[in-house]
Amino acid sequence: MERLPGFRDFYPEPLPHADTWSADARQFIFDKWRETAKHYNFREYDGPPLEPLELFTTKSGEEIVGQLYNFTDKGERAVSLRPEMTPTLARMVAAHERNYKKPIKWFALPQLFRYERQQKGRLREHFQFNADIIGETDPAADAELIALLIDTLRAFGLTEQDFVIRLSSRNAWQEFYRSKAQAELGEYDFYQIIDKLERTPLAESEKKLSSLGFSLTEVNAFIELGKPTIELQSILDNLAARGLKDFVKVDYRVIRGLAYYTGVVFEAFDAKGEFRAIAGGGRYDNLVKLISGGKVNLPALGFGMGDVVLLEILKARGLLPKFDANVDVFVLIEDETLRAPSLKLIQELRAAGFAVEYPLTPAKPDKQFKRAQELKAAFTAKVESESYVRIRNLKSRDEIVAGFADAANHLR
Amino acid sequence: MERLPGFRDFYPEPLPHADTWSADARQFIFDKWRETAKHYNFREYDGPPLEPLELFTTKSGEEIVGQLYNFTDKGERAVSLRPEMTPTLARMVAAHERNYKKPIKWFALPQLFRYERQQKGRLREHFQFNADIIGETDPAADAELIALLIDTLRAFGLTEQDFVIRLSSRNAWQEFYRSKAQAELGEYDFYQIIDKLERTPLAESEKKLSSLGFSLTEVNAFIELGKPTIELQSILDNLAARGLKDFVKVDYRVIRGLAYYTGVVFEAFDAKGEFRAIAGGGRYDNLVKLISGGKVNLPALGFGMGDVVLLEILKARGLLPKFDANVDVFVLIEDETLRAPSLKLIQELRAAGFAVEYPLTPAKPDKQFKRAQELKAAFTAKVESESYVRIRNLKSRDEIVAGFADAANHLR
Repeated sequence: MERLPGFRDFYPEPLPHADTWSADARQFIFDKWRETAKHYNFREYDGPPLEPLELFTTKSGEEIVGQLYNFTDKGERAVSLRPEMTPTLARMVAAHERNYKKPIKWFALPQLFRYERQQKGRLREHFQFNADIIGETDPAADAELIALLIDTLRAFGLTEQDFVIRLSSRNAWQEFYRSKAQAELGEYDFYQIIDKLERTPLAESEKKLSSLGFSLTEVNAFIELGKPTIELQSILDNLAARGLKDFVKVDYRVIRGLAYYTGVVFEAFDAKGEFRAIAGGGRYDNLVKLISGGKVNLPALGFGMGDVVLLEILKARGLLPKFDANVDVFVLIEDETLRAPSLKLIQELRAAGFAVEYPLTPAKPDKQFKRAQELKAAFTAKVESESYVRIRNLKSRDEIVAGFADAANHLR
Repeated sequence: MERLPGFRDFYPEPLPHADTWSADARQFIFDKWRETAKHYNFREYDGPPLEPLELFTTKSGEEIVGQLYNFTDKGERAVSLRPEMTPTLARMVAAHERNYKKPIKWFALPQLFRYERQQKGRLREHFQFNADIIGETDPAADAELIALLIDTLRAFGLTEQDFVIRLSSRNAWQEFYRSKAQAELGEYDFYQIIDKLERTPLAESEKKLSSLGFSLTEVNAFIELGKPTIELQSILDNLAARGLKDFVKVDYRVIRGLAYYTGVVFEAFDAKGEFRAIAGGGRYDNLVKLISGGKVNLPALGFGMGDVVLLEILKARGLLPKFDANVDVFVLIEDETLRAPSLKLIQELRAAGFAVEYPLTPAKPDKQFKRAQELKAAFTAKVESESYVRIRNLKSRDEIVAGFADAANHLR
């Protein structure tokens, strides 16, 4: 029986196949995400993987339904596996924001889902690090969030040689647009053209732009100039004070596709441009109000970083460690009459915090020792009587005989 | 907009409402589950939350569909949110078992789903600690798994005063059944009656048993006697050698509802009998063969422990810690001209591994200090010039002035 297309099985390493996924690498990534978030005093939250379909259409319009893993449940509810975390966050914050001091700094590590019929072989789920700041309009919040993004990538060993944050602003583009165009009508269409500029033939972009009254030349000149707005300059100065200015550059080609961004937007890319975006985010100051039906109005911003592109880059840069079983002690049982005291030792070592393995059933001594080596055990321990344990350091090959109660002290 | 019925939102503590769920408590439970599993050298795996419906009906029959969160996806596939992890594990092991030495010792922390129409207000999802041993028939494997179950509960501070493992055996009941009944026909019906004995009126059980040729008296006598089978005695001796015998007792009233158990079965209960079962499991020696369509034949056993009952018990016993923000250092910015060097300090302290918070925007000194106290920060740090930092231990109230580069050393 096969798993569903686009879903992943996560196996312990060593991996059975090149196309299977590593549960150990996933946990390594999750641990780094959590650790960095905590350094920044972001608190963890989570919501349901399944939400009312309306939660996602309210925010992004009906056209998003074509990409959703949505269905009608047994209670005749229109529901969807979550394609992103932001609407759930907005719903949760709107429901209980009064209990939390602003700014709210929260993160989550949700599994997200989508269903695109045409894209065979593409994943239909991934995990994402989501970090958001809610309740602060000052660009200091944007800087704090971008610093977290930078430090998250640095926590994996990536440097300014490996990635760059391309910083942009919907406000800058809005000003540009409104200075030329008559009405707000067509503004979002204009953003869509900018968003696709890098992956659209020039002639096509030129044609589309001119239908809105713009030339490709003036658009390119605006991008080329890349003059930071006041808010962007404030963010750049803030990041420079932290010593992070080499990780960020203004790049107005970034505008983000989603309709709901309202101000600063940014994306993290690998410096060589070999991979898809590593992360992306921005301000969505109107979303909490929209989701809460007007009841709660809070400015907000956030980013999402997926596990798939990140994993590709870490592999390419040789930054993924080897994941072993991490056995501290392998208890050898060569004399079956000593199995009972061996089990007692195993219990005591585990209670003392060691990862302990042993042969469940009688096995030849050389086979046991080989297994200890395969598991990269740091020590072997062999009960020699009810009172004594022989401990061997498998790296140094030092051996000592310790009293039973004293064994744990020789394993540090 | 509301979340779906039966699903949970997980908030950071302090919780907004008594009926919301704590993301911190969930993480506390997950951490303990992972930690104990690692002491026992169980490796983590995971599969998709969505599987082909057939994976679950193969194992448990079509009647299970009424309890599943199943639907037809956009590709016209009959699929289901996973109601349990064992079929996914069997599928994954069957696909790649040759790459792993036996016995395979794996664990997972899946979110599981069910949809029962009639049960209003009941949860439709929960998280479960699943641990399994695959490829070993010897009762030593059962003992190892039950020891893990016991030590997992002990890791939360629960003792032999709080819980007991009720150990039973399908084999014992099979022998009992076959010694009286003519054919295997009716055997599973008989198990169902035993499974429901504790929550069914006596007269009803009596009537059902007699239709299969048994009396309630002889069934009760068999339970009362509680004579361990050879395999159960072997498990009891093994656990006694580990010093764990007070945590387990033979109790033939436990038989487990699911059809696929083949040998030893067990459940963990709170000692006072106030809660539903904390965990349950047993041997399912035929399942890997069934799921793999006969290709792979491996004996197996496992248990599942849900987060909901566990959380109730930990609360009732006062064993849930308070979860604070765990801020190490709150950086006070009382002089805005020193914001840039303050940001530098914040960056350095975070890079050194500290959880650091600070006012994103200008704020009155007393308000900042109050916030530091609310966040239970261990220290405040205030940049006094480009060269000096004033550090205050909020517990001891000791203050020192340190050189900028030296500040981190005074925060341990």
